[in-house]
Amino acid sequence: MTLSSRDKLAWTAAKLFQERGFHGVGLAEILKQSGLPKGSLYHHFPNGKTDLALAAAALAHRETSRIIDDAFREAKTYQAGATTLLYKLAKLFEIMGKHTACPISETLFGGPDNTVFRAQSADYFEAWIRQIAAHAERLGVAPDEARSHAERLFVSLQGGWVLARAKQDGDVIRNLAKLLFKDG
Amino acid sequence: MTLSSRDKLAWTAAKLFQERGFHGVGLAEILKQSGLPKGSLYHHFPNGKTDLALAAAALAHRETSRIIDDAFREAKTYQAGATTLLYKLAKLFEIMGKHTACPISETLFGGPDNTVFRAQSADYFEAWIRQIAAHAERLGVAPDEARSHAERLFVSLQGGWVLARAKQDGDVIRNLAKLLFKDG
Repeated sequence: MTLSSRDKLAWTAAKLFQERGFHGVGLAEILKQSGLPKGSLYHHFPNGKTDLALAAAALAHRETSRIIDDAFREAKTYQAGATTLLYKLAKLFEIMGKHTACPISETLFGGPDNTVFRAQSADYFEAWIRQIAAHAERLGVAPDEARSHAERLFVSLQGGWVLARAKQDGDVIRNLAKLLFKDG
Repeated sequence: MTLSSRDKLAWTAAKLFQERGFHGVGLAEILKQSGLPKGSLYHHFPNGKTDLALAAAALAHRETSRIIDDAFREAKTYQAGATTLLYKLAKLFEIMGKHTACPISETLFGGPDNTVFRAQSADYFEAWIRQIAAHAERLGVAPDEARSHAERLFVSLQGGWVLARAKQDGDVIRNLAKLLFKDG
């Protein structure tokens, strides 16, 4: 896949923000790691870092939605789909070096314009919860139960990721399946 | 309560790191908000920001442990204690302005010396989980169940806090009680 220079900049920013947070990364480093000329940055992101952070979060949101759909596509039950999702994300966590943060919380919360960034992250989080709830309903879970399941999965995953990062252990994410579904 | 100048610096740092992350806050601002003279900073924290971040996390850890014990002290059941803990933390989240992060994850992960910081945060997280599990056991929960309950509460709270921050809504944290205990 060939990325446009806009997407290349956004992906590079997403990766660096996940590692060190919005304030921990400078534009010069993003530009250097992207391998693109300086003019490219201001052409695509005239407002600089804030624009870039929003674009990075949008890309990460799209990618996460794709992973959610992939996990549930072949699942016969909600529990099976949720477990596959946890295993896929644990693998991703390990591939990325066991130290990256949630791309949305890390990219958006640290930003200077917190109101815009927080509203955007609330929208993305809500979209993931609804997407998971929709899969649960499709797989036979009652609507109100589906919403609770999706919220439980979301908060456990968001918190489990933080714990996995501290412990440097992707199994923390895999073991969430046991914590969530041990009673059936 | 009169704070020592060391604790005053550490508390000021903790508060600012929770709002903007380790990289989002400079030493000059911490010093200014603490109201202390410059010499005080280098006297108590000769290695500067890293030292200060570790001291801030240690203070926040101690304070959180105190809140956990307070929540469970009068509880008749594990569920009652866990619910009180969630309500106390929701209140704290609101009092602090609905935008602060977990003092440990925010202070420690963003630091330059990630190995030391991450190991320290893993220790603090593990200590909280054990503390909650010990309360659960004391209140009659079987040991392996107590550990699972404590892990579930920890990851839900850590993730719920992120969602509450995005949504600017402390009820996200209160509602975790329903998500965790709706089946009794």
